[in-house]
Amino acid sequence: MNESHIRQLFERFQAGSISIDDAVSSLRNLPFEDMGFATVDHHRALRRGFPEVIFCSGKTPLQVAAIAERMLAAGSDVLGTRASSETYAEVARRIPDAVYHAEARVIVVQKEKKAVGRGLVLVVSAGTSDIPVAEEAAVTAEVMGNEVGRIFDVGVAGIHRLFAHRETILQAAVVIVVAGMEGALASVVGGLVARPVIAVPTSVGYGASFGGLAALLGMLTSCASGVTVVNIDNGFGAGYAASLINRRDTP
Amino acid sequence: MNESHIRQLFERFQAGSISIDDAVSSLRNLPFEDMGFATVDHHRALRRGFPEVIFCSGKTPLQVAAIAERMLAAGSDVLGTRASSETYAEVARRIPDAVYHAEARVIVVQKEKKAVGRGLVLVVSAGTSDIPVAEEAAVTAEVMGNEVGRIFDVGVAGIHRLFAHRETILQAAVVIVVAGMEGALASVVGGLVARPVIAVPTSVGYGASFGGLAALLGMLTSCASGVTVVNIDNGFGAGYAASLINRRDTP
Amino acid sequence: MNESHIRQLFERFQAGSISIDDAVSSLRNLPFEDMGFATVDHHRALRRGFPEVIFCSGKTPLQVAAIAERMLAAGSDVLGTRASSETYAEVARRIPDAVYHAEARVIVVQKEKKAVGRGLVLVVSAGTSDIPVAEEAAVTAEVMGNEVGRIFDVGVAGIHRLFAHRETILQAAVVIVVAGMEGALASVVGGLVARPVIAVPTSVGYGASFGGLAALLGMLTSCASGVTVVNIDNGFGAGYAASLINRRDTP
Amino acid sequence: MNESHIRQLFERFQAGSISIDDAVSSLRNLPFEDMGFATVDHHRALRRGFPEVIFCSGKTPLQVAAIAERMLAAGSDVLGTRASSETYAEVARRIPDAVYHAEARVIVVQKEKKAVGRGLVLVVSAGTSDIPVAEEAAVTAEVMGNEVGRIFDVGVAGIHRLFAHRETILQAAVVIVVAGMEGALASVVGGLVARPVIAVPTSVGYGASFGGLAALLGMLTSCASGVTVVNIDNGFGAGYAASLINRRDTP
Amino acid sequence: MNESHIRQLFERFQAGSISIDDAVSSLRNLPFEDMGFATVDHHRALRRGFPEVIFCSGKTPLQVAAIAERMLAAGSDVLGTRASSETYAEVARRIPDAVYHAEARVIVVQKEKKAVGRGLVLVVSAGTSDIPVAEEAAVTAEVMGNEVGRIFDVGVAGIHRLFAHRETILQAAVVIVVAGMEGALASVVGGLVARPVIAVPTSVGYGASFGGLAALLGMLTSCASGVTVVNIDNGFGAGYAASLINRRDTP
Amino acid sequence: MNESHIRQLFERFQAGSISIDDAVSSLRNLPFEDMGFATVDHHRALRRGFPEVIFCSGKTPLQVAAIAERMLAAGSDVLGTRASSETYAEVARRIPDAVYHAEARVIVVQKEKKAVGRGLVLVVSAGTSDIPVAEEAAVTAEVMGNEVGRIFDVGVAGIHRLFAHRETILQAAVVIVVAGMEGALASVVGGLVARPVIAVPTSVGYGASFGGLAALLGMLTSCASGVTVVNIDNGFGAGYAASLINRRDTP
Amino acid sequence: MNESHIRQLFERFQAGSISIDDAVSSLRNLPFEDMGFATVDHHRALRRGFPEVIFCSGKTPLQVAAIAERMLAAGSDVLGTRASSETYAEVARRIPDAVYHAEARVIVVQKEKKAVGRGLVLVVSAGTSDIPVAEEAAVTAEVMGNEVGRIFDVGVAGIHRLFAHRETILQAAVVIVVAGMEGALASVVGGLVARPVIAVPTSVGYGASFGGLAALLGMLTSCASGVTVVNIDNGFGAGYAASLINRRDTP
Amino acid sequence: MNESHIRQLFERFQAGSISIDDAVSSLRNLPFEDMGFATVDHHRALRRGFPEVIFCSGKTPLQVAAIAERMLAAGSDVLGTRASSETYAEVARRIPDAVYHAEARVIVVQKEKKAVGRGLVLVVSAGTSDIPVAEEAAVTAEVMGNEVGRIFDVGVAGIHRLFAHRETILQAAVVIVVAGMEGALASVVGGLVARPVIAVPTSVGYGASFGGLAALLGMLTSCASGVTVVNIDNGFGAGYAASLINRRDTP
Repeated sequence: MNESHIRQLFERFQAGSISIDDAVSSLRNLPFEDMGFATVDHHRALRRGFPEVIFCSGKTPLQVAAIAERMLAAGSDVLGTRASSETYAEVARRIPDAVYHAEARVIVVQKEKKAVGRGLVLVVSAGTSDIPVAEEAAVTAEVMGNEVGRIFDVGVAGIHRLFAHRETILQAAVVIVVAGMEGALASVVGGLVARPVIAVPTSVGYGASFGGLAALLGMLTSCASGVTVVNIDNGFGAGYAASLINRRDTP
Repeated sequence: MNESHIRQLFERFQAGSISIDDAVSSLRNLPFEDMGFATVDHHRALRRGFPEVIFCSGKTPLQVAAIAERMLAAGSDVLGTRASSETYAEVARRIPDAVYHAEARVIVVQKEKKAVGRGLVLVVSAGTSDIPVAEEAAVTAEVMGNEVGRIFDVGVAGIHRLFAHRETILQAAVVIVVAGMEGALASVVGGLVARPVIAVPTSVGYGASFGGLAALLGMLTSCASGVTVVNIDNGFGAGYAASLINRRDTP
Repeated sequence: MNESHIRQLFERFQAGSISIDDAVSSLRNLPFEDMGFATVDHHRALRRGFPEVIFCSGKTPLQVAAIAERMLAAGSDVLGTRASSETYAEVARRIPDAVYHAEARVIVVQKEKKAVGRGLVLVVSAGTSDIPVAEEAAVTAEVMGNEVGRIFDVGVAGIHRLFAHRETILQAAVVIVVAGMEGALASVVGGLVARPVIAVPTSVGYGASFGGLAALLGMLTSCASGVTVVNIDNGFGAGYAASLINRRDTP
Repeated sequence: MNESHIRQLFERFQAGSISIDDAVSSLRNLPFEDMGFATVDHHRALRRGFPEVIFCSGKTPLQVAAIAERMLAAGSDVLGTRASSETYAEVARRIPDAVYHAEARVIVVQKEKKAVGRGLVLVVSAGTSDIPVAEEAAVTAEVMGNEVGRIFDVGVAGIHRLFAHRETILQAAVVIVVAGMEGALASVVGGLVARPVIAVPTSVGYGASFGGLAALLGMLTSCASGVTVVNIDNGFGAGYAASLINRRDTP
Repeated sequence: MNESHIRQLFERFQAGSISIDDAVSSLRNLPFEDMGFATVDHHRALRRGFPEVIFCSGKTPLQVAAIAERMLAAGSDVLGTRASSETYAEVARRIPDAVYHAEARVIVVQKEKKAVGRGLVLVVSAGTSDIPVAEEAAVTAEVMGNEVGRIFDVGVAGIHRLFAHRETILQAAVVIVVAGMEGALASVVGGLVARPVIAVPTSVGYGASFGGLAALLGMLTSCASGVTVVNIDNGFGAGYAASLINRRDTP
Repeated sequence: MNESHIRQLFERFQAGSISIDDAVSSLRNLPFEDMGFATVDHHRALRRGFPEVIFCSGKTPLQVAAIAERMLAAGSDVLGTRASSETYAEVARRIPDAVYHAEARVIVVQKEKKAVGRGLVLVVSAGTSDIPVAEEAAVTAEVMGNEVGRIFDVGVAGIHRLFAHRETILQAAVVIVVAGMEGALASVVGGLVARPVIAVPTSVGYGASFGGLAALLGMLTSCASGVTVVNIDNGFGAGYAASLINRRDTP
Repeated sequence: MNESHIRQLFERFQAGSISIDDAVSSLRNLPFEDMGFATVDHHRALRRGFPEVIFCSGKTPLQVAAIAERMLAAGSDVLGTRASSETYAEVARRIPDAVYHAEARVIVVQKEKKAVGRGLVLVVSAGTSDIPVAEEAAVTAEVMGNEVGRIFDVGVAGIHRLFAHRETILQAAVVIVVAGMEGALASVVGGLVARPVIAVPTSVGYGASFGGLAALLGMLTSCASGVTVVNIDNGFGAGYAASLINRRDTP
Repeated sequence: MNESHIRQLFERFQAGSISIDDAVSSLRNLPFEDMGFATVDHHRALRRGFPEVIFCSGKTPLQVAAIAERMLAAGSDVLGTRASSETYAEVARRIPDAVYHAEARVIVVQKEKKAVGRGLVLVVSAGTSDIPVAEEAAVTAEVMGNEVGRIFDVGVAGIHRLFAHRETILQAAVVIVVAGMEGALASVVGGLVARPVIAVPTSVGYGASFGGLAALLGMLTSCASGVTVVNIDNGFGAGYAASLINRRDTP
């Protein structure tokens, strides 16, 4: 459509119905996105197997459901994060195909599953309280077309539990480490593998964990190379970044 | 060697020179690394094209030179970060092949360059003062076998300078964004591309930048999906993580 | 009245009913505001088209209603910020003309609208959760006599949405940028325009946004010249400052 | 030039030397800034009486001098902030017209002074140690075409010194308040005037001033409406924002 | 009783019923408070007109009432701070003389009022939301035998309201300044008077007030000499310290 | 069992049913914990008189009860911390022997009490609000086989109350000091005794206590040698560490 | 002189040389300080035995010497704080009577010593490194006319050293407690005495003392009533406040 | 001597030279330490094999040497921490027996070495930059009579290096873990052993390590039970606490 817009301009110019001055001026005044620039490529890329995302926290169930319907109508899949069961109920009332991952607090509407990932995305988490964030990461990566493995409740304070999963960890293409009180876990895993590790600090903990700050700082200062960090509790962001890293169809 | 150690155990057991009890007991008391576990795989992985790393800050030129010599003797390449010109002088005195990347403060000793990267690792930085950290990231990625592009001195406050490089940015396989006073740059780049973006906050700035804290927090809370963050000023870490993401020979 | 007070002093002195010593002494003991100083000019200035303001948070509906009535009786317009719907109900019961801007949480009682602004005050916000603060800024500026434009839900992570509004942004006399997780937006807008930009960090966000701190620091360290910042969530303050900047009748 | 680029495209299309497909494709691939968009308007605006700015801190005298020469060659005036006397010496060696404002640590090269401001920009500062930042603000505003007043060394702890300048303060079009240990000064001045007040916290102080944090927070939470804040020690930013507010030729 | 304990020791020694060794040993093993040391002097001092204090927050109404009864039985007056109306109800059920200062959240049981203060303790507060803390300070000082004045709702943003009370302020023996968003008030008052000023930051405010931190830091870095600070919201502490300063019967 | 696993390997190798290559390979692939390593010793140590621990906060009563049952079935004692009375009710329904220490919020199931401690573990706390944390420490130490003393409600502001317990304090083998608003208590006790002191900051307090930060920092910077610190409110951790220190059967 | 200014106004009015309107108008336009208001009373109060104060840090020796000369010429005594020995050398060159208290880094020029204090101002400090701040407090109080006692190097970690001075402490009219790593000292002293205690946190310490923050927070949250706090390292402020509290000639 | 003081009192009373009233009164007025209380026991305990300690930082070489001489004269051994080589030179000039541990920056003067420890005190450190703090801990423990082991440069990022020392770690009576950028090390070691672990965060690191804060918080929130923490860089404190734990002659 954008291109046809520009094409018409040339045709009208060729037909003599606008002067060269007006043609140049028209171009300058075109809305940005009509120019077929990066943003469109970007969107196209996003649509290659990746659904659009709704951050449900702070939106009413009705608002979320309305946005989801509009997305579906536009041909997009839907991923809703931080969704309460009330929000899901409203979405499911209108979109019966919607699936709710309760622990991850994620709503998914997906027509067909595409396998776009190269290898295994592995989600490792430290404590049982870290599981909601870990599940958000895992479900996000699954919806984005990856095979996802889960190793939950392994901590550095009982490091043999982690080491029992050594083989699986070494086979992963990307590892996501989710931890609140054991930020150290990211360092240990980062030291074991030669693959990218994405660390997710969680706000789980008390006292000097200061809402995830302790885990965040520990993960950032970790000496293990290859570890990068996302925002506290941002399981979605980790799953999304892991999916970008793991995509089969990229250079 | 480790395997031969274990193999000898079986042979001595077979030969009857030790009892089954002693054999089992011996195994338990073997030093961990003799067991041929993950760590060895890990090391092997590390050696596939990646040199060992010396963090020179806080070490004397003599210490750095000694470590470098030992590494070379063991057949490893050498990457020394945060190296002063004094440190380089001492290293170069003993290892004439050593190369100094002054702006990056990096010393490199590399026998042959291997091209192990899939696509372009692009380093984007905001201000001229961010360049040392950006160069550390770029040189690290180069030494680790990647083709590296550099777009320096593009900031969001004059966003057209960034957009002039749109084509290059869209072609990168991984983008590293280095910024101190313009943490926003990571968000903007993250919104443009559909590839992994690694953000490096720098301690450049004054006042409320609080030694890089402002950029760090801004990068972490960025809404752009696909952005992950490393420690303040950790150009090496970003270059290393980008290299892991970009490796050709991984799943 | 103050002047007459002083005038009487001179008259009583002239009439010989007080000595010069007593006159001088009287002057020294006059309450400060009776002297007709700056504060009166200041108040007069404030009354030129600007209503008085009630910060409703922490006051009961009854208290707010009582203060509003007293203001009206004194001839002032009323602007109540951070007002719940309960507070509005009580105010409306007594002052039927009171208008409630629900999203902005603002109560307005205004006899006649004066147009005192020179140009357009434009309010730009990043996420849907930032809208209450953005609306507080917008309604404040409207009540203070400005034409106000709104561009909501444009973020740097999808910067083409922002650029689609380029023309409007360039025409504004003052721009207010409201953002919680995308503090970067202030930098980008500040880089686009040659007009004053007032940035309002919001407490929207989670994790390392630390109640608005990330956005606040990012906005303060922004390299874009012409950007100034108000307190976290202080939409009113931004609308007020924008109105002062945009006043037609000032030097 | 950009326009001529586009114009040529239409002419070559008209002449039949390129197809309509190639023309459309060409347009998409043009470097962004060639399109004559906002950024050019923005630049033009910047050039209306405002020199370009060099942040000298972290650059060598040679680098600063080189940049300054390039700017002058391009017809721009030059404003160099955070410039040491060594930097000035090098600049002056090459550009004899360069002027050094020692206390402000600012270098200025300006062909002719344009008066573009509407009213008085008044810089008020609390302590003698705040003067360098206050001077940076004042010189910036002067170079940008404003009449600038200075009231230094007035603090709230001896508030009568401030009030002795009441008349001047009330006549200002914009007031810049610079204070480190007396962040309160911004509140007091903000309460006196009905004009925009820009507060600049400084890093002057000790103990719980924590490098300007105390003043910054105090200024942000100030109850005085119309006060906005810039980064700690950012005199330039305050002078620049005040100039934008005070420009005669804007809506 | 303690003395009699020691006296008995001497008498038993004199009577020959214990040896000198046992007497010395006995002394060493006496409980500390039996020795009649500083703590007793201290207690005696405390009892001179000052009631004991119960911090009610975190105690049940029953617990508070029980403690209050025990104190009364021991002849002490009672001051209960941070007391809810439920707590008061329980206390009043058992001690009908108990008085509740609702705004100050303080319960008082006092047999007779002693006037032990030299001059006026004046409590000045900035906003209506600061009043509970200001009242806690005022009631504490009253119960401790001082004449107390109150000037509420005077802020630096409208400094003429403060100055209208100049005479009263200058007559005070001690001034307590209570403020959350206008920490500046302590500086201004401190600059007006030549008497001790005790500043109480309050947690009132939002955004960058960070639970009272902004006011606390501002008050600590104030340039006004003679200002000291107590904990955030600690009205009781300020009233207590003011009472110690104002006591008639001290050196 | 692990040993028998390895033993079988040798026997099958001896019997010729596997080659030496397969035997070595098998060993490498054994799950880590089968190797009889440190972790097993560690577990054995833990089981010597110490029950397993469930952190109940964030788990449902049903989850806690299920875990407790599984532990009992495995022959372990049970210690559940941060347990609500609802959680206890569910546990007690299934395990009638379970005991609830309400103030400590601790559930204990213990078959027989073993006395494994050398000396007295003494828990000293400052305020009544610190008691839950102090009790958690005390009950933990008791369950782990120590004789435990309690001295509650002694603070440095009335230091004679502390000194009245001098004898008891000097006899303790380990002292745990629990304090929120009186972090100083750890320094004072640390200065009195020549035994290890474990300090537990609590989140009790208001204002500048910042959730226990003030007490934490004060305890860390204490000049008294021999004082170590655990996380804010971590009574369990202090009780556990004290038990390790006090164990009779260690070197 | 101010009064004579006003007096002249009345006389000129009486003489008919100005109209009543002009007289009233004149009064309004008089510079504030000419009005003989509070500030003058304040100044007079300050001069009653108290010298003016120069904060020398950040001023050159020449500047300090010049200010000191001007003060002397105006009849004032001089107190210079944070003065280096270089600064003293310059001052002494011009004002031979100037005295330097090296440890306190204080310069004093005082014509005659007035004894204006009621009782003893006692300065108690914890470590030898706290002595410079303690001496600044002590010298300030001495210069302001108080008898000053010093008890240095007493800490809570060896509390018997403090208690050995019990008698002296109990006799003080005001106690100043100076401590960096032993913030607890303020609580302990505050619990011993029934007199005002002013706590001065110092920046002495390392690690988690964070430049005095640990001591500051500990002193603020102290449970001991009657303790107020000044800025980190602000010995002068404490000495000044203590002098105000201890003045003989106040209500 | 103290006892003889008290004994004389009884004798003089017995002899009739003082009345019972005077005797009781005398006792009350005795200096505290004359009473033979805890502090003396405490001192005696300290002297059992433990030298006195001088914190040399902030003291001149002359001061340190003088204190050391006084201690020796009083029969005490000497331990000087944070001592520069200049300080040692001055001490050695006067006390030829003084030994300097350069890496630990510790001066020791010890007449005879007493072995008072039960088991091995093991110091484990992560990076080469952590060694000075680790050595301070090790030398302190050695001087206090313990057998000390050292395992340096083992980090969690290469956890096999740590595990190679498994046997030694499991044999230790107390483990001290010293780490700056790998705070995780304390968790891992704490999970391996069933003995007390003392964690020492160091200020080594950059960026988000914030002077040791990251390591400190990570160590405090560690899930491994039995881990306690001392101040950042406080190797001495860890060595001292470990010695108290390891003492042979305690309950």
